[in-house]
Amino acid sequence: MTPSPREPPPVLGGGTGRAFHADGGEPLHLRLARSALCPDGLTSPEAVEAWLAEARDGDRMTVRPAPLSELPGWNVDPRTGDLTHVSGAFFTVHGLAVEHRDAPVPRREQPIIDQPEIGILGLLVRAFDGVPHCLVQTKAEPGNVGGVQIAPTVQATRSNYTRVHRGRPVPYLEHFRTPSRGRLLVDVRQSEHGAWFLRKRNRNMVVETREDIELLPGFRWLTLHRLHRLLDRDDLVNMDLRSVLGCLPVAGPGAAAALAPTGGFQDALARSLDASPGLHADADLLHWITERRTRTDVRVHRVPLSGMAGWRHDGTTVTPEDGRSFEVAGVTVGTAGREVDDWSQPVVRPLGTSVAAFLVKRIDGVLHLLAQALAEPGCSDVLELAPTVQCVPHDLDGGPPQVRPPFLDDVLAAGPDRVRFAATLSEEGGRLYHARGRYLIVEAAPGDGGPDEGPEESPDFRWLTLRQFAALLPHSHYVNVQARSLLACLYSLPGR
Amino acid sequence: MTPSPREPPPVLGGGTGRAFHADGGEPLHLRLARSALCPDGLTSPEAVEAWLAEARDGDRMTVRPAPLSELPGWNVDPRTGDLTHVSGAFFTVHGLAVEHRDAPVPRREQPIIDQPEIGILGLLVRAFDGVPHCLVQTKAEPGNVGGVQIAPTVQATRSNYTRVHRGRPVPYLEHFRTPSRGRLLVDVRQSEHGAWFLRKRNRNMVVETREDIELLPGFRWLTLHRLHRLLDRDDLVNMDLRSVLGCLPVAGPGAAAALAPTGGFQDALARSLDASPGLHADADLLHWITERRTRTDVRVHRVPLSGMAGWRHDGTTVTPEDGRSFEVAGVTVGTAGREVDDWSQPVVRPLGTSVAAFLVKRIDGVLHLLAQALAEPGCSDVLELAPTVQCVPHDLDGGPPQVRPPFLDDVLAAGPDRVRFAATLSEEGGRLYHARGRYLIVEAAPGDGGPDEGPEESPDFRWLTLRQFAALLPHSHYVNVQARSLLACLYSLPGR
Repeated sequence: MTPSPREPPPVLGGGTGRAFHADGGEPLHLRLARSALCPDGLTSPEAVEAWLAEARDGDRMTVRPAPLSELPGWNVDPRTGDLTHVSGAFFTVHGLAVEHRDAPVPRREQPIIDQPEIGILGLLVRAFDGVPHCLVQTKAEPGNVGGVQIAPTVQATRSNYTRVHRGRPVPYLEHFRTPSRGRLLVDVRQSEHGAWFLRKRNRNMVVETREDIELLPGFRWLTLHRLHRLLDRDDLVNMDLRSVLGCLPVAGPGAAAALAPTGGFQDALARSLDASPGLHADADLLHWITERRTRTDVRVHRVPLSGMAGWRHDGTTVTPEDGRSFEVAGVTVGTAGREVDDWSQPVVRPLGTSVAAFLVKRIDGVLHLLAQALAEPGCSDVLELAPTVQCVPHDLDGGPPQVRPPFLDDVLAAGPDRVRFAATLSEEGGRLYHARGRYLIVEAAPGDGGPDEGPEESPDFRWLTLRQFAALLPHSHYVNVQARSLLACLYSLPGR
Repeated sequence: MTPSPREPPPVLGGGTGRAFHADGGEPLHLRLARSALCPDGLTSPEAVEAWLAEARDGDRMTVRPAPLSELPGWNVDPRTGDLTHVSGAFFTVHGLAVEHRDAPVPRREQPIIDQPEIGILGLLVRAFDGVPHCLVQTKAEPGNVGGVQIAPTVQATRSNYTRVHRGRPVPYLEHFRTPSRGRLLVDVRQSEHGAWFLRKRNRNMVVETREDIELLPGFRWLTLHRLHRLLDRDDLVNMDLRSVLGCLPVAGPGAAAALAPTGGFQDALARSLDASPGLHADADLLHWITERRTRTDVRVHRVPLSGMAGWRHDGTTVTPEDGRSFEVAGVTVGTAGREVDDWSQPVVRPLGTSVAAFLVKRIDGVLHLLAQALAEPGCSDVLELAPTVQCVPHDLDGGPPQVRPPFLDDVLAAGPDRVRFAATLSEEGGRLYHARGRYLIVEAAPGDGGPDEGPEESPDFRWLTLRQFAALLPHSHYVNVQARSLLACLYSLPGR
């Protein structure tokens, strides 16, 4: 069907290539909606529980603290204190000076993980009885709370998959290294935490295959519905899988009807995924992002890990003198069933649980999310769109009230009538140790002017629809990892 | 009208915000098509010639060479030889070491212009009798061939518009600094030449106003049709204006009908701007870009301008010992009518004329452009999409044949039956001196298999439609400045 010439022009892009037309006619987002509403599928709820129990029983990973100066395979530079792997691969921990003219603290120093390699977070999709299923695995990481979590099909750094550590090959990697075997749905470099990583990016990839795939131990095919039912269990669906789920192209015309909403919030959510116009035109949102990126003056430069103002590097750990933010520590890991059996490494251990919360509001019956343009030291391009609230309350305790982020107290105080999603979820456990966040989706309290009233926008905040987020997600550097996690959580709400 | 749920999903994005619906109903790209086909308008062809003649007569700019070490206001660092302005503003010229493992020359050094400030290239648009007109100006720059060229409404570095040099205010700047006065159509940071500039970006902005605007001396309202008729005159429409014209959102459903094509090439061009599917799905093109960016290993780091391998810095100029590429020289500029009356500055002077050419091909009746994923030292994000051919033939003379770019000899030898556009156009004259390029749009020679046959794609080349280019252009770092120029040239071909 040819679009009408009276349709407004595409601004965040539009139209698609022929591959979608050649594929039996049904658009991808409608097939994904079917997967999101499909309670059955290859793996029943009972089979999921048995699979998780088996993985936990089989988990042999042991993690013991070790002084940074005594990690086999790692060097502490005698001059700078920087931590590097003897192979030159994996990652480095060094210091970073951050100058942000308009921030409450204009200049500060901190450790940062420098991992220039781009890894692959790959999700393999296959339709069974017409319903797309995702191939996921149980995976233990040294920093995980609870040991085993649910991970995407492939989760591999470049050092992993080029086998720098001479370990076992990564299962199913060939589907992402030679994706012409399947149909490429998503391939975008997305950032990870800009507070801890310097310009780290991983490829978030989704490939649909029609091949018969051997199911290796530890792997299962789950519908989106089944995955969504696991998302709000604490520390279960890992960050890498949430990030990829957040990048799935689930928005598009017809989404509202396909999701069979049941009124109220569900209606507004479904319409937000559809082609409904938002409060702001797409061009105005891109202008806002360009304007914030142009006006924000953040400069970073590398400094030695030893001798940073406010930090103590004693060879065992690198610790903040004020007891806030995070420390750098060492761990020795023993395991069976991994690419290599034993290793040691530095980790970043946050000293508090973070909060990541989107305020959402129905505007003209369409759900909008209040996005924050947030500059973090590790951002590749000045800033990205973050949740309405993203901070570590522990780091604020006893601090001056003016650095308390807007909306923090509101989302923490919200009652169950406003909270649409709440779970404590783990950040990635390969570099971070017991890093957890309280993930919340909270409806804005109605203002005096009626249900459409609510918090006003300020220069760093704008209301976006889910379709507008989805239109930014095929491109790098727009939506940060906490926001992608929360999008995955929002996508899990239809059908509840 | 609600799109059908059978429409394929948006991949490069899709849909728009309410502002477009509120605006009388006619989509922007159809209004721009009307402007492109409107031979009349506020400024007749005769009035254009009179305006240009007047500007040339009034041009009082004098440009004289001056040794780098004797430029008032500029310092040559005694240790590094680097060139900096005494204010710390404007730009710096320093050295850059470029390591590109897979390039014919894996390591080399060169001077580079470091201008971290983000300027504004702003085009003001206003409808007269329903036809959008663009406010353009005649402007002399020290490096211009021919002195005066046609420039966008505003062309200002941040140092310009924050008035570091204490000069006159920039006319019409308020429309771009406070664009809420009008309707924001485009606001995107786009790169400039990665061969000469380190991660330089300018905001390409288009704002439509409904206010009555005072026409200042040197400014004129031109339809797109009138601008298009000037585009193929040598050294007339300047690079900044071409870049902004290349970012105009001219693609969208209904474009084919609106452009009233006359068959053959015109049909294929119009369909390429429409919603016609291309050879590749959008997701596959994004995958290709991600793949090339992940695989390409280019690293750059700053080195002193003095002492670079292959370069001589004698205090007068910085010159390549092999007589290729470019030199850095100084100029002293005298003028009247500028923000400040006299100044001195370094410039980059290319030693040969470049070639920028798109091979185009009709595939299933839809025009496709052969894009090249090209890494240049100054790229902000590894590489951008460049024309099929982008090089300086002078730099290749006498070199090994294996570094001769693919398709170069083909586009230079193409006969008039295949050449759809040809002109020698100037690059920007504010930092570059007499930098010119031969801009070509050449139909691919038909292969043995019929008109749809032609050059095969290789890893660095892909066929894109104009709609696919247009969908990337609202985002930074996808389409380089030469490609944007050529897109503006392609947009000028309907109606010829």
